[in-house]
Amino acid sequence: MNTAYFGPVRPSPGAVSPLRPAAVARIDGGFWAERRRVNAEVSLAEGPARLEAAGNLANLRAAALPSTQGGDLPSGFSGDFQFQDSDVYKWLEAACWQLAQTSDENLAVEVEAVVDLIAAAQREDGYLQTYYQLGGGEPWTELGWGHELYCAGHLMQAAVAHHRATGSDRLLDVARRLADHIESVFGPGKQVDTVCGHPEVETALIELYRTTQEKRYLDLARYFLERRGHGSLSSGADRGHDRDPGPEYWQDHMPVREADEVTGHSVRQLYLLAGAADLAAESADTELRAALERLWQDMVTTKTYLTGAVGSRHDWESFGDAHELPADRAYAETCAAIASVHFSWRMALLTGQARYADLIERTLFNGFLAGVALDGKTWLYVNPLHLRARSHERPGDQTAHRTPWFRCACCPPNVMRLLASLPHYVATTDDSGLQLHQYASGVYGGDGLTLRVATEYPWDGMVTVTVEDAPAALPRTVRLRLPAWCTQHTLTVNGATADGEAQGGWLQVTREFAPGDIIRLDLAMPPRLTVPSVRVDAARGCAAIERGPLVYCLEQTDQPGGLDPDSLALVADAPLIAGSRPELLGGVSAVTSVGQLLPVDEPADWPYLPHGAKAAREPGEAVELTAVPYYAWANREPGAMRVWLPLADRR
Amino acid sequence: MNTAYFGPVRPSPGAVSPLRPAAVARIDGGFWAERRRVNAEVSLAEGPARLEAAGNLANLRAAALPSTQGGDLPSGFSGDFQFQDSDVYKWLEAACWQLAQTSDENLAVEVEAVVDLIAAAQREDGYLQTYYQLGGGEPWTELGWGHELYCAGHLMQAAVAHHRATGSDRLLDVARRLADHIESVFGPGKQVDTVCGHPEVETALIELYRTTQEKRYLDLARYFLERRGHGSLSSGADRGHDRDPGPEYWQDHMPVREADEVTGHSVRQLYLLAGAADLAAESADTELRAALERLWQDMVTTKTYLTGAVGSRHDWESFGDAHELPADRAYAETCAAIASVHFSWRMALLTGQARYADLIERTLFNGFLAGVALDGKTWLYVNPLHLRARSHERPGDQTAHRTPWFRCACCPPNVMRLLASLPHYVATTDDSGLQLHQYASGVYGGDGLTLRVATEYPWDGMVTVTVEDAPAALPRTVRLRLPAWCTQHTLTVNGATADGEAQGGWLQVTREFAPGDIIRLDLAMPPRLTVPSVRVDAARGCAAIERGPLVYCLEQTDQPGGLDPDSLALVADAPLIAGSRPELLGGVSAVTSVGQLLPVDEPADWPYLPHGAKAAREPGEAVELTAVPYYAWANREPGAMRVWLPLADRR
Repeated sequence: MNTAYFGPVRPSPGAVSPLRPAAVARIDGGFWAERRRVNAEVSLAEGPARLEAAGNLANLRAAALPSTQGGDLPSGFSGDFQFQDSDVYKWLEAACWQLAQTSDENLAVEVEAVVDLIAAAQREDGYLQTYYQLGGGEPWTELGWGHELYCAGHLMQAAVAHHRATGSDRLLDVARRLADHIESVFGPGKQVDTVCGHPEVETALIELYRTTQEKRYLDLARYFLERRGHGSLSSGADRGHDRDPGPEYWQDHMPVREADEVTGHSVRQLYLLAGAADLAAESADTELRAALERLWQDMVTTKTYLTGAVGSRHDWESFGDAHELPADRAYAETCAAIASVHFSWRMALLTGQARYADLIERTLFNGFLAGVALDGKTWLYVNPLHLRARSHERPGDQTAHRTPWFRCACCPPNVMRLLASLPHYVATTDDSGLQLHQYASGVYGGDGLTLRVATEYPWDGMVTVTVEDAPAALPRTVRLRLPAWCTQHTLTVNGATADGEAQGGWLQVTREFAPGDIIRLDLAMPPRLTVPSVRVDAARGCAAIERGPLVYCLEQTDQPGGLDPDSLALVADAPLIAGSRPELLGGVSAVTSVGQLLPVDEPADWPYLPHGAKAAREPGEAVELTAVPYYAWANREPGAMRVWLPLADRR
Repeated sequence: MNTAYFGPVRPSPGAVSPLRPAAVARIDGGFWAERRRVNAEVSLAEGPARLEAAGNLANLRAAALPSTQGGDLPSGFSGDFQFQDSDVYKWLEAACWQLAQTSDENLAVEVEAVVDLIAAAQREDGYLQTYYQLGGGEPWTELGWGHELYCAGHLMQAAVAHHRATGSDRLLDVARRLADHIESVFGPGKQVDTVCGHPEVETALIELYRTTQEKRYLDLARYFLERRGHGSLSSGADRGHDRDPGPEYWQDHMPVREADEVTGHSVRQLYLLAGAADLAAESADTELRAALERLWQDMVTTKTYLTGAVGSRHDWESFGDAHELPADRAYAETCAAIASVHFSWRMALLTGQARYADLIERTLFNGFLAGVALDGKTWLYVNPLHLRARSHERPGDQTAHRTPWFRCACCPPNVMRLLASLPHYVATTDDSGLQLHQYASGVYGGDGLTLRVATEYPWDGMVTVTVEDAPAALPRTVRLRLPAWCTQHTLTVNGATADGEAQGGWLQVTREFAPGDIIRLDLAMPPRLTVPSVRVDAARGCAAIERGPLVYCLEQTDQPGGLDPDSLALVADAPLIAGSRPELLGGVSAVTSVGQLLPVDEPADWPYLPHGAKAAREPGEAVELTAVPYYAWANREPGAMRVWLPLADRR
């Protein structure tokens, strides 16, 4: 048992997993360190108060009352959803990953108090879901919307994190009793022979298996994965839901191994694929692996936003059709970005390929990070790439307003757990050495090879890797991902130019390393204009500004006179100037350019006009435009925002 | 009482209504006659069987049982929605408008049978809604989702139609008893002081007032219109709905007279505005009229598709933001197109302006008519302007599949009633003479002036108007709308060229008409390319083919080798050739052109690329494209469809 690893996703020793997460993984400076500091000091710290105010903790306390244990006193349940408990578990998991990295006595005390609460709420037989314990109905009868296995999964994930962070078995025992109860209920010929409407338990059971070596949990995960896709949930919606979302919604339309398209509810789809990737690794299942590569490919080539976000449809929070990627109505749920990272990371471990880390980088810096405000206090549930001026007047959770907490609060603690565990997504090791998937200042290593990374990434492309420790007289290979966005780079080893040819996305340095050896990778990151493929209808005729891994956007507040970005166009051959703005949005590089005012179409009483009427137009007035990183948008006064801007007609 | 008018929307003698629907209104040939024939012989004729199969009629029978009248025996209710009764009422209204035009003994018998059923189902106190009578809960307690006033409104509309068509008071008495019951329940200080979640009763009460001269009904309509917009419905969703749509959804966020933007659920919005237009006419309310002109203007300039369709968002079936007009995810509900026609027609009567008929024409020929299959047997609920190849694999009501009937079957009988009453939307009269808003072969007239219209519209732009009857020695003015799409026309009177200058959208001929006088209007209708305003992001870089009032589309099945329209581009300067295709889709003019294959972007593993990578592309291979009228799409094998096509880059 590899007790040296304190993060999520730990393949078993026997798993088919060319790469393994680096045992040493610590971010201690730069961009992500600051985001993680805010996550720890603000978001995580405020978590218990949020969960108290929303009633989640009260639900656990109520479920712990002796009378409830007997099942005869339904108490009041707080919250609108069956899965309220999962918010607690996700916060707890996040707190544990944080504790695994940094000691924090207050946080440790709060964690143990919540563990107490959870342990007390568990029923004698192992069952645990406060919604049903507090009068919500009979357990295991509403598999579609009940979210019992979903919550159980999040509890297991929290328990694994708690065990890895603290060494304690306290919460792990709760998780095992729950898993054992589930095993007693689910299966062919047992009380229930179907799956949960929301995948999550699959990854969780496999992590539980990896932690306990209890093969029954792997078998149970396999049962849930293979059982799904045969329409066992499709017989209709549960009570309280007036529309039937159809079997794609809960991924019950087709087994994963047969599918060729990501579809349905995006978070459900991607949590399921993450679980399938874990299963493929633990079972050496090459057919399943091939299906996962096919599905990841479908996602990245046809259903992913420039920001890495996925799940374009508001309708059922779903993947749209191929190339259906509207900027304004992008649903692009924060949780779906997180789920994409979870899936891609497992694919990186399973295949050893660098491309998965390309998508992870893009997602982390853009579609994911936009989900939390710079101050760590408010959140976005949906992450559009275009907000019109009056959209702010629309109320509701599913709008682009930063909100302190949501009625359906899945996203905030999900952001917390990814930020808290982020160091573990940076580097991997294999028999040959170490791979740097992401660039974040810190220390990464394993098997005797330890590297210190120093970088101002994403503001500057210089990455300095210093060897802190290396096995003597043993050639090792250090691989550095050459980002797909980068068209010019230099690589040196101890000052000497090294082979800069990337293979499969990796730059390689092989030698007998010694402490003090320095690898320098310099990635040129001039601002650039990116255009959509001809199939991306929603961005046709537009371009977006990018720099390094960052996607930029125009916010109304930065434009001269507060010009609405909807009235602006980019000029393709106008220079793009990057400039450091330490005072802006916590310190960013902004990008400026000279654009044009869009012409006003006449007549204005009908938004369509004869083709010839357009040809004669004069170019619009020149305007200095300012773009800021997309992740930092919606942190100032409300206003319009665009990632894609029309390209002015050339004349 | 003007007993000579047998159609809907009859302003009172004292109403402020510059135009009045023509008393004589008969379509007897050409395009719309054929659509109306199919409507009568297929859609209307199949209605009772559909309503039987869906349980709507069974609900009425069950409600008529003596035990139910006592309220003590909840029987089973068929159907998923509180408003199932309205499907019956809308079919009944449609059948009555049909009977008003054409005698049909079978239909007359079926109408009376349904009237019997409705009369029997009504409670002693006048209440009538089978959902609540059959155990659905306490009446008048779920105003948000209950749809009781909505159903009542449709009953009243049906009763008015029945009375105008047959002269009978039988259903009118049922409607009056229900209206009287509503009056006893609703109002300040009464049992309920709020509005229905779905407007409809407002137009209905005003039509009831116009038919009965009972001013209490006008006052009640005014109460509902003025009461709305003050948040009385916004306290939360009713049971059975897990999301709160917010006050805009049911138009309760702001009084109509204060609003400056159409918003919320599009059908709710437009039914409400239709009712407000009726009220403005009957009350000489100039402030309300000004608000309605403002809101119509907002709709037409920023929230209307090229097809005339409205309501772009699937989410809550709502209007989107200004210029949020996605082609692929256009919700564009058939009912919203119908509601738009209802609203625009009332605005035409209220203002006398021609522009409203321009939008009605566009909507009728495109966004509305696409809602029913050519054979009258199947229906579209949503009417996108773009369907990708794999979209057909998605199940559910709200997709672009023609479906025999819907779980929520609002659209089919709504289409039936508009087609059945269509002759009444063609012409109006005023003190000066007659106005032709639409061009359809038939006879239109009033006050002694009767005109016969003969035209092959929309396939040919020649409209021949022959005077059949005219008052002697009295100068009359005949106005003919010059369609906004038309850029070249000629007008002759008895063979002599007449003044062809339009004023406010109207061509005018004033003279002492005599029988046999002939006005000829020849509207040139070459196929044309239309482009979007710069603000319509979703169609940027694209053009659409139009001809006359028709919007065209490319269906996959018509392209060489079944090419997916998503791989095609239009070439701006390639000729567009219109050609008659009598064998195609019931006989249409198709439009052909030489387009190009879109290039394939490389690399294909990420749908975004550096701006420079695009500039060097060669033009794609030339391809002969065939476009068909949008209204006729989805009548053959499933396949992709586009209205907007990219314009090939010029080189």
